[in-house]
Amino acid sequence: MADTPAEPSKSALKKAEKQAKMAAEKAAKAAKAAALPIVGGKKVDDIIGMTVSKTENFSAWYTEVVLKAEMIEYYTEISGFFILRPASMFIWNVIRKWFQERIEAMDVEEASFPMFLSKTSLDKEKDHVEGFAPELAWVTKAGEKDLEVPVAVRPTSEAVMYPYYSKWIRSHRDLPLRLNQWNSVVRWEAKQTTPFLRAREFLWQEGHTAHLTEESAGEEVLQILELYAGVYEDLLAVPVVRGRKTEKEKFAGGYYTTTVEGYIPSNGRGIQGGTSHCLGQNFSKMFDITVEDPAPKVGDKAKHLHVWQNSWGLSTRVIGVMVMIHGDDKGLVLPPRIARLQAIIIPVGINKSTTPEEKAKHFDQLQDLKATLKKAGVRSDYDIRDSYTPAWKFNDWELKGVPLRLEYGPKDAAKSVVSYARRDTGEKGTISIADLATEIPGLLETIQKDMYTKAEASFREHRLVINKWDEVVPALDAKNVVLIPHCLAEKCEDKVKDLTTGKPEEAEGPLELKAPSMGMKSLCIPFEQPAGIVSGETKCLNPECEAFAEKWCMFGRSY
Amino acid sequence: MADTPAEPSKSALKKAEKQAKMAAEKAAKAAKAAALPIVGGKKVDDIIGMTVSKTENFSAWYTEVVLKAEMIEYYTEISGFFILRPASMFIWNVIRKWFQERIEAMDVEEASFPMFLSKTSLDKEKDHVEGFAPELAWVTKAGEKDLEVPVAVRPTSEAVMYPYYSKWIRSHRDLPLRLNQWNSVVRWEAKQTTPFLRAREFLWQEGHTAHLTEESAGEEVLQILELYAGVYEDLLAVPVVRGRKTEKEKFAGGYYTTTVEGYIPSNGRGIQGGTSHCLGQNFSKMFDITVEDPAPKVGDKAKHLHVWQNSWGLSTRVIGVMVMIHGDDKGLVLPPRIARLQAIIIPVGINKSTTPEEKAKHFDQLQDLKATLKKAGVRSDYDIRDSYTPAWKFNDWELKGVPLRLEYGPKDAAKSVVSYARRDTGEKGTISIADLATEIPGLLETIQKDMYTKAEASFREHRLVINKWDEVVPALDAKNVVLIPHCLAEKCEDKVKDLTTGKPEEAEGPLELKAPSMGMKSLCIPFEQPAGIVSGETKCLNPECEAFAEKWCMFGRSY
Repeated sequence: MADTPAEPSKSALKKAEKQAKMAAEKAAKAAKAAALPIVGGKKVDDIIGMTVSKTENFSAWYTEVVLKAEMIEYYTEISGFFILRPASMFIWNVIRKWFQERIEAMDVEEASFPMFLSKTSLDKEKDHVEGFAPELAWVTKAGEKDLEVPVAVRPTSEAVMYPYYSKWIRSHRDLPLRLNQWNSVVRWEAKQTTPFLRAREFLWQEGHTAHLTEESAGEEVLQILELYAGVYEDLLAVPVVRGRKTEKEKFAGGYYTTTVEGYIPSNGRGIQGGTSHCLGQNFSKMFDITVEDPAPKVGDKAKHLHVWQNSWGLSTRVIGVMVMIHGDDKGLVLPPRIARLQAIIIPVGINKSTTPEEKAKHFDQLQDLKATLKKAGVRSDYDIRDSYTPAWKFNDWELKGVPLRLEYGPKDAAKSVVSYARRDTGEKGTISIADLATEIPGLLETIQKDMYTKAEASFREHRLVINKWDEVVPALDAKNVVLIPHCLAEKCEDKVKDLTTGKPEEAEGPLELKAPSMGMKSLCIPFEQPAGIVSGETKCLNPECEAFAEKWCMFGRSY
Repeated sequence: MADTPAEPSKSALKKAEKQAKMAAEKAAKAAKAAALPIVGGKKVDDIIGMTVSKTENFSAWYTEVVLKAEMIEYYTEISGFFILRPASMFIWNVIRKWFQERIEAMDVEEASFPMFLSKTSLDKEKDHVEGFAPELAWVTKAGEKDLEVPVAVRPTSEAVMYPYYSKWIRSHRDLPLRLNQWNSVVRWEAKQTTPFLRAREFLWQEGHTAHLTEESAGEEVLQILELYAGVYEDLLAVPVVRGRKTEKEKFAGGYYTTTVEGYIPSNGRGIQGGTSHCLGQNFSKMFDITVEDPAPKVGDKAKHLHVWQNSWGLSTRVIGVMVMIHGDDKGLVLPPRIARLQAIIIPVGINKSTTPEEKAKHFDQLQDLKATLKKAGVRSDYDIRDSYTPAWKFNDWELKGVPLRLEYGPKDAAKSVVSYARRDTGEKGTISIADLATEIPGLLETIQKDMYTKAEASFREHRLVINKWDEVVPALDAKNVVLIPHCLAEKCEDKVKDLTTGKPEEAEGPLELKAPSMGMKSLCIPFEQPAGIVSGETKCLNPECEAFAEKWCMFGRSY
């Protein structure tokens, strides 16, 4: 599947890597320093949190937030690999469950194919494999013995699965055949790796389906794309643009690729969110997947048809996009629907004058609050760790992105209310305990919607429809992606990238100032097209291109 | 995790393999032949089903049933690998969901660690790794480049995970740390592979936990073991014996291993079902996982304690055990709780004299029946494929193991009843349509219970308590496992295996007659001990052993 982001300049990446590592080390030191006083049993009043600002150094901020919020651990034994900690896996599992239910309703079934490809079967379909060849991890030995034929760890499973599609599909009655698997794939990238966004091993789902007709395949491509959009918009509160990839950017060996594209406001870059490919009959011809024509024309003798195939994949990258969009200088900000903890209850106003009886009674009430919330379907917990101050706890849970903080002290108890603070806006208020079961779920939904609305407005404002070439680079520099009239030719895209790539000697200074040196590439041809292109009249915006524009195409600097 | 069954004799295996392959080829040919007439649009009245008898050739029968019921496809590209088709993955997902809910309630969290181990970290803990070394798959190249340090695909994840346990566990407040992952592992077995039972890659869950005390670790070991027993007994209708592994059979590097052991009546072999290990402090010492003593004795200075660790794993092997126990000469027999389709509705009595209107009305009623069953929580479907006779369909769904067949024809319609046939017993009857929503779920539960009861009785009858050595081999030959008084010493176990191993020259003839040549090994020390061992008085049953018996130990020929 095409997870093939653009290549940022190498020197920029080296610098970013260094800064990120320094930030990570600093973060680790800070965390360690923070932990020490607790081990000794002392009280800790230090406020432990983020040390890097999102606007000042976005890359370092990102590394720090995924580490400190305990989403990721770097697998130091082998570079380019990451450990997904429970905070990440919870989110992935919410997505998995949501998506699984919906593809089940489409009669997609689950299967599990081996993780290895033999060299022999790879050689059968060189065109498709060519793109993955430099990234294949080769097993050449088992124990002490060399394998007769080396095997590669799958980078994607077309070549693993399709020989069996050929075997299993014997009649049009076996169509559509729709299988999906949840697994991990390995692409030994030489490029800079980044938690979630680009890793040498990543979790994903890969769906592979076969259909009798182009129409049936095409319908499914869009159904799946809409589900991918739903994962972003409905669960992660991340807006995306739906569209088709250009010929240059489509999946190698496929017919056409549809995509949902996201946008990272902090650096103005586009990011590919998930792709749903129609493979056409290319693979069915390579792998000889045919059925007898169920409706031959009168007089014709029966003929064999090659099936139409799709493949579609969504990876843990979605989590990284969500972190980048919603996080702030205090840490992670999680949309309520995917947050493991939606509300954290923190006792306040407990001090030296509080009697043990009062304290015990107060803590009983915390349990009641949690029970009430659980009944209302809210995932909550209380934090009664006694070596920390409330202020320390506030920061800790903010760092971890919990959408709602509920403060509860003797004063609140006296008034039968709970005080709250929203993670996304910082807004505070009180809610009567009698109304908790209705108000909190409502408030969580409001947060979810507000987070989406804010991100959507930001993407909309930074998606500029541009008709003058001179406005393109300034628009990119101002952290926009652009929609321009384009001829959609591959060569022209290459030229557009060249023309918008800054010269290396200009690329000095800190990371964020270096971003302008990256050329733009096409992100997608949005399904929703602005008006204004007149066929055979509107020119392609590339000043060095003579062709007419075919479509509005979204370009941007990108991951 | 110790999935380490005994080694049957090589020649027996070669022969079994050949027979199984021949059966598989025959099966494939039969299936192909069966399919051809449909492709041509002709009606097929042939009864397609199993060609091998379970009692006559158990190994070949097993291969045929997992292939023809579409649970497994052999991955012909690389030997020892299998494709799990939707019929298998459905079962695995039922188990996964059931187990996941229960470990979540125990506060076990999910994580995802990389699939590779570096050579460097493997070298750190040689003792544990030694057992896996001959089976490690080594990645030595990425693209065209040799890796500086080769990496192995995980055979299990202790060495991947525990360096991070050392990092994350900084205080007793971080305990217990309980992580689980669902993934696949690779063990490049040189031995004969068998679908589900022994594959070079298999799906499993692996739980890895750390505790402050031995007591806390020990409690969890048994909680998990009880869940493993629950998977077998409550979901798969397979009885197991709970017990502890002997020193010889425990997990390499661990402290003690608990296990659930199953029994295959067809060949009288024991089979390890799932293992829950207490690792003691062995790994925490290797990986330096410590916390400061939270309750040092008065006057002592603070000291560091090594944590207590467990690991536990359950694999797709469970599916193979279920197939072996319940299947019959007609094919698979699925316990209702794990069956993807619990009831199949087949229209009968539709013939040439049926008018199109009558047929349409009848098919509408099938939809009503399905809707009623769905509402009652029953997974059902109807089979209206019109190129097959009812008899063909009966056989097809019997082959696939659907627990309940519902026949519905005009005569049933006239009486407002549905006729049923149980897959497990063949028992037939009728149910009033008005009672379907209560009767069918009840009947499915009855089938589930009856299947367990039958298997349990069989295991109980073939678990012989034996006090005389001379009775041991005849008991094994009569397809029993045996409980004998044993000293539990490793050397004595080796001797017992030798003494019960038949001589190669005796091992002629067809497969099932060759089984007697296999020596017996210890399966477990059952928690439920028969009476009769007097400490310091009862002798170990091995005639060449001088020691006293410690416990009743269950021995058997085994997988």
